[in-house]
Amino acid sequence: MVVFESCDRSRGRLNSPLSCSNGDNATLPENETFQGATPRAPMYTSENLIVNSIKMYEKMNKLLHHTDAFSQRNLIIRRGQEFIMGIVFNRPFDPKMDLFFIEFLIGKNPVQTQKTLIYLTLAETNQPNIWDLRLVETRQNEIKVAITPAANCIVGLYSTFVTVITNLGKQRSQRNYETDFYVLFNPWAPMDQVYLENEEERQEYVLNNVGMIFTGDYTNVNKRPWNYGQFQSDILEACIYILDFGEMPLWYRGDAVKVARKASSLINSVDDNGVLVGSWSGDFGLGTAPTAWTGSVEILRQFYTEKGKPVMYGQCWVFAGVFNTFLRCLGIPARVITNFCSAHDNNGNLMTDIVLDEDGGLDRDVSDTIWNFHCWNEAYLKRRDIPEMYSGWQVVDSTPQEISEGYYRCGPASVACIKMESLGYSFDAGFVYSEVNSDVVYHKRDRYGNMSVIYVDRNYVGKLVVTKMIGSDDYNDITDRYKHSKGVSRRETRVKEVSALDRYEFTLPDTDVKLCTQATKNNDDLMLIMIFNNLSNEPRTITTKITGKVEYYTGATRTQFKFLTHEVSLKPLEYKQEVIIVTADEYKNFIIGQSFLSFIVYAFINETEMSLTAMESIYMSNPPLHLEVSRISQMGNEMLATVGFTNTLGHDLTDVTVRMEGLNLFPMKSKMYRIIEQGSKIKWLESFKPVKAGTMTLVACLDCATLRNVCGHVDIVIQP
Amino acid sequence: MVVFESCDRSRGRLNSPLSCSNGDNATLPENETFQGATPRAPMYTSENLIVNSIKMYEKMNKLLHHTDAFSQRNLIIRRGQEFIMGIVFNRPFDPKMDLFFIEFLIGKNPVQTQKTLIYLTLAETNQPNIWDLRLVETRQNEIKVAITPAANCIVGLYSTFVTVITNLGKQRSQRNYETDFYVLFNPWAPMDQVYLENEEERQEYVLNNVGMIFTGDYTNVNKRPWNYGQFQSDILEACIYILDFGEMPLWYRGDAVKVARKASSLINSVDDNGVLVGSWSGDFGLGTAPTAWTGSVEILRQFYTEKGKPVMYGQCWVFAGVFNTFLRCLGIPARVITNFCSAHDNNGNLMTDIVLDEDGGLDRDVSDTIWNFHCWNEAYLKRRDIPEMYSGWQVVDSTPQEISEGYYRCGPASVACIKMESLGYSFDAGFVYSEVNSDVVYHKRDRYGNMSVIYVDRNYVGKLVVTKMIGSDDYNDITDRYKHSKGVSRRETRVKEVSALDRYEFTLPDTDVKLCTQATKNNDDLMLIMIFNNLSNEPRTITTKITGKVEYYTGATRTQFKFLTHEVSLKPLEYKQEVIIVTADEYKNFIIGQSFLSFIVYAFINETEMSLTAMESIYMSNPPLHLEVSRISQMGNEMLATVGFTNTLGHDLTDVTVRMEGLNLFPMKSKMYRIIEQGSKIKWLESFKPVKAGTMTLVACLDCATLRNVCGHVDIVIQP
Repeated sequence: MVVFESCDRSRGRLNSPLSCSNGDNATLPENETFQGATPRAPMYTSENLIVNSIKMYEKMNKLLHHTDAFSQRNLIIRRGQEFIMGIVFNRPFDPKMDLFFIEFLIGKNPVQTQKTLIYLTLAETNQPNIWDLRLVETRQNEIKVAITPAANCIVGLYSTFVTVITNLGKQRSQRNYETDFYVLFNPWAPMDQVYLENEEERQEYVLNNVGMIFTGDYTNVNKRPWNYGQFQSDILEACIYILDFGEMPLWYRGDAVKVARKASSLINSVDDNGVLVGSWSGDFGLGTAPTAWTGSVEILRQFYTEKGKPVMYGQCWVFAGVFNTFLRCLGIPARVITNFCSAHDNNGNLMTDIVLDEDGGLDRDVSDTIWNFHCWNEAYLKRRDIPEMYSGWQVVDSTPQEISEGYYRCGPASVACIKMESLGYSFDAGFVYSEVNSDVVYHKRDRYGNMSVIYVDRNYVGKLVVTKMIGSDDYNDITDRYKHSKGVSRRETRVKEVSALDRYEFTLPDTDVKLCTQATKNNDDLMLIMIFNNLSNEPRTITTKITGKVEYYTGATRTQFKFLTHEVSLKPLEYKQEVIIVTADEYKNFIIGQSFLSFIVYAFINETEMSLTAMESIYMSNPPLHLEVSRISQMGNEMLATVGFTNTLGHDLTDVTVRMEGLNLFPMKSKMYRIIEQGSKIKWLESFKPVKAGTMTLVACLDCATLRNVCGHVDIVIQP
Repeated sequence: MVVFESCDRSRGRLNSPLSCSNGDNATLPENETFQGATPRAPMYTSENLIVNSIKMYEKMNKLLHHTDAFSQRNLIIRRGQEFIMGIVFNRPFDPKMDLFFIEFLIGKNPVQTQKTLIYLTLAETNQPNIWDLRLVETRQNEIKVAITPAANCIVGLYSTFVTVITNLGKQRSQRNYETDFYVLFNPWAPMDQVYLENEEERQEYVLNNVGMIFTGDYTNVNKRPWNYGQFQSDILEACIYILDFGEMPLWYRGDAVKVARKASSLINSVDDNGVLVGSWSGDFGLGTAPTAWTGSVEILRQFYTEKGKPVMYGQCWVFAGVFNTFLRCLGIPARVITNFCSAHDNNGNLMTDIVLDEDGGLDRDVSDTIWNFHCWNEAYLKRRDIPEMYSGWQVVDSTPQEISEGYYRCGPASVACIKMESLGYSFDAGFVYSEVNSDVVYHKRDRYGNMSVIYVDRNYVGKLVVTKMIGSDDYNDITDRYKHSKGVSRRETRVKEVSALDRYEFTLPDTDVKLCTQATKNNDDLMLIMIFNNLSNEPRTITTKITGKVEYYTGATRTQFKFLTHEVSLKPLEYKQEVIIVTADEYKNFIIGQSFLSFIVYAFINETEMSLTAMESIYMSNPPLHLEVSRISQMGNEMLATVGFTNTLGHDLTDVTVRMEGLNLFPMKSKMYRIIEQGSKIKWLESFKPVKAGTMTLVACLDCATLRNVCGHVDIVIQP
């Protein structure tokens, strides 16, 4: 157990230091005599009462609190819901004469007013938000009590003490680590801030430990399996450790809004040395490539066991995957969201600027980028800090947005606020709004350097917002939760009083030729289809300039591999389709290690001297990883998992890592291949004995510098 | 000039690095030939146009832009307001034939779409928020142009280039540091976000470089003079350096909301190594005591010249004083606010807990603290990120609030939001609301440890909110801008939809005896007056327990010097006043180095077993520092300033520092006295020659470990 320095810089500021760590709970003294005066404690006629033992009834309580999947031995309960505790005395308890009280404490400096010390007696009290205690049963020397933690109590690891009052003073039970217990948020409790009414949703968003994260592009959505593993050993400890590491005062840990906000900054390592180091450079030699992870367990366990050393490396789906584990583990309903064509880092002006040079090519030095996709999380919360109507799903994002004012955290931002454009409410709603609603503004620069706006695309950004469907591996389109459908004008739906937008409205003359583009794959070749529609009664000649480039998934340019000019003549009112074929040979040497190609089309109408533009991205799927398991799948029986891969690429793969992980089947295993020659196959067999029944998922990923994002998964039903 | 590492961690994330420093502007090449094709530049019949020089008309422009008080030689203008620039060519300019453009740039990577490169021609453009350029006059070889910076442009130091188009390409003027100019926020421009309509207010909140910060307690308000010195040499440079130091992206520096928020975190050194290290411990050996500073100039200059090494030490009025300088210097209207009886660090539950032990004494280990006073700033801003009705004065606070969730910044929080309880709007309105509106909850603990709430005081916190009056050294009571007057119920005035409070409502039975307290000074003795009012028809006997303690100004207990029991008998319906005298001898050995005494009264009504409580603080004024100047006060004439002090305290003072500073009179001078024996006097004469006419203020402070907070000031009218 790691002990932290207390975040006490309080001398002259506070009377008592504030506890910021759950790393080591205090121990209370076993004996306390009363000060001064005659004791007013009961005068025993029989022998003094003594506490012999305390029973936490772990198994029964865990089942009732939906925490039985956790591998920890100690009791884990959820707040706002009763649990049973037994106290065994040296003799039968006499309610008329005997006096006892229970103390639960958290942290090193437990204080009642800070809710870090819970003091419970059977007597009445007028303290705010107190826990409830009632006597359930007295049988021989044992009494059973039912305790209901306050529905807003601090979440974390508590210690238990029982004290009896004797003639001589207070006699307290010994510190016993076995009676320490975890209290989590409770989506099943109506009074809890994270209450979620629907049982199916609770099963998915709190208890499902495997999921699917969507990547790729909106016309070709790719599934990436992810092991959240919130119930695996060490993970709950790691999640609390993260809050300790960030020195989050304990008394804020009862508020899911604050916990989620704090964690959004602690999951990334910028500023505060949090869990994951982000890297988008393509050079991952010092750690694990973001594309190689099979889930969160390895990452969180490493951070925890290496005492807070940041883990390398993450990109958005890794941040979102780990954050999802954190939230579900502590009991906050959570899901991973993918936004396709995600604007970023332009908080405030709602514009993404694309600049074309004098020749109509992309000026990549000054153009903004648009993520091909970006992942974040949603957490389900009641907001008490903003109007109630904005409760429900809240965006939280732990991917460090490099230039968002030096805030390396984001949210909770109410999804309802984003849709209703009520962007002034805490936290960061405007930032998320711009990710799904920015305008793409095309500028053209003349030979002198003077720039003009030539086109504004209001529909490119935020094309599709998805999350995993409940009970399925497919995606659920939730775009309409973030934005109004295209028919509805944004302005009409805006609630004027609470909206706060600073969108610049451009007035550009209408063109009499329209352009529509589409990009598709035809085997390995690409087809860029341009559809021109001449609305005028005169002929039109169009000069198009096409820029083809390989991109990072962030939209940043890696290589420009094509720039061509293409002339088109249109008769009056003609509708014409032009197809540009890009062969595999043209791009294949540049795509290595990346998955996105993109085209920018600039079209100049010679007669009217007006311009048209369009942009298309294509996600290049990779060859699949085949996963198989032997048929007989029964608890305790030996089984065989096989990972197979054939290198159909035109080049050898070197220094290839394959990772395989099955929650409750076997922990993550990895294998290195120095070389997989072109055309050759690999086959990796791994035997294991399942120890738990139920549906399990096996996930595997293959990764090397020239081929990333190759994953596979298979579901297995283990019979009891 | 310090060069910063760029905040570029952008590889794979962004196409071009984002500029986060104004420390070193880029230099553009002098020659640029056109690429490809035939030049379409004008074909000169006469000789090529060449730029001989650029004139910034510093004096005239500065006068019109209210920046003439700045000591910097370079031009300083305010945005959204026209200024004049002259371009001298080698021959007369021919508007029909000659082509030129002006480029202003800021930072190392100027980009038009990021507004860090401003490109101006006399031609029309459709770029958003562009600066305006018009030709004013052509006389011989010089043209005069009038330029209006966009009212939302980036604030900072720009460089100037003029480029002419010749047959051969672009010919640019050389980089010339003398044509660099500063652009500031503009409270005089109606389109600017910081527009302030009233000229008297602009004179005070933007141009006044001296002020008064109020401390002490609400019944005995103390004035502390403060030199803001925003126009002194190095200060503007230091303010921009602070933003560079915090790596604030340039393109956010046009938004006063973001600048104020960022600076609120950078004025303190927690987290980000900002300007001032806070210390409340009383041990200031490694730096300057917070009580010893005479103003902001010394602090900002030290931070700037020592390249970002944090300055030791600050407490709230120092943070507020320095922040005020920063805001006024950049052109954001600002003032220092003092809130007497300021709750803190309890964001969310709106309770400050005072715990009394079994005997009725204060349990200082678990009791919260209330600042006797706390200072913050207000900045006058138009909010575009929240509904417009919340524009106007905004709270910003740079004092690190140790336990507010690890945020070491605060605001801008709209004062209107705080009054209307619309606390969900950005930023931190709930936090400030609790500073002026928390309830003080008194708990009493019984012998077993069980706690009960015995009294809730809804009026103690936020007793008085003040700021300096315009044109006077006295305070202006602005409490009613933060809260409704006592008659009006908070609940009635609350706008339900946008309110977000989580206040716990206690229901306590009414007592039939009322208690009212008052504490006053009688020479050096103190009188604690307790007024009991028996509302019942029966006699009452009251046992009162009185705790007397010396406090830090934060309310944290330093020493408890008194605890006494006092019995009172009341006849039916009797109204009775009891006075407790505390002689100087009882407290004088404990008050050394501090200024606050406080009493907590616990009264137990024996017949009804009910409790009453009250709390009183007293500010102990210190002997004054006498400041005088010789009568003849004329520019250029030698004058004499005298600081006098008599040690009337009962003990010697050792290691005493005296600081004296008069803006535009002489820079800060300090003097050390190893000992000032009790009863003895010091007199320090300093001669100086005023170089500027007008009303100046001389400020002096005396400070040592056993006597703090001794200041004086005198206003001098210097004749021209």
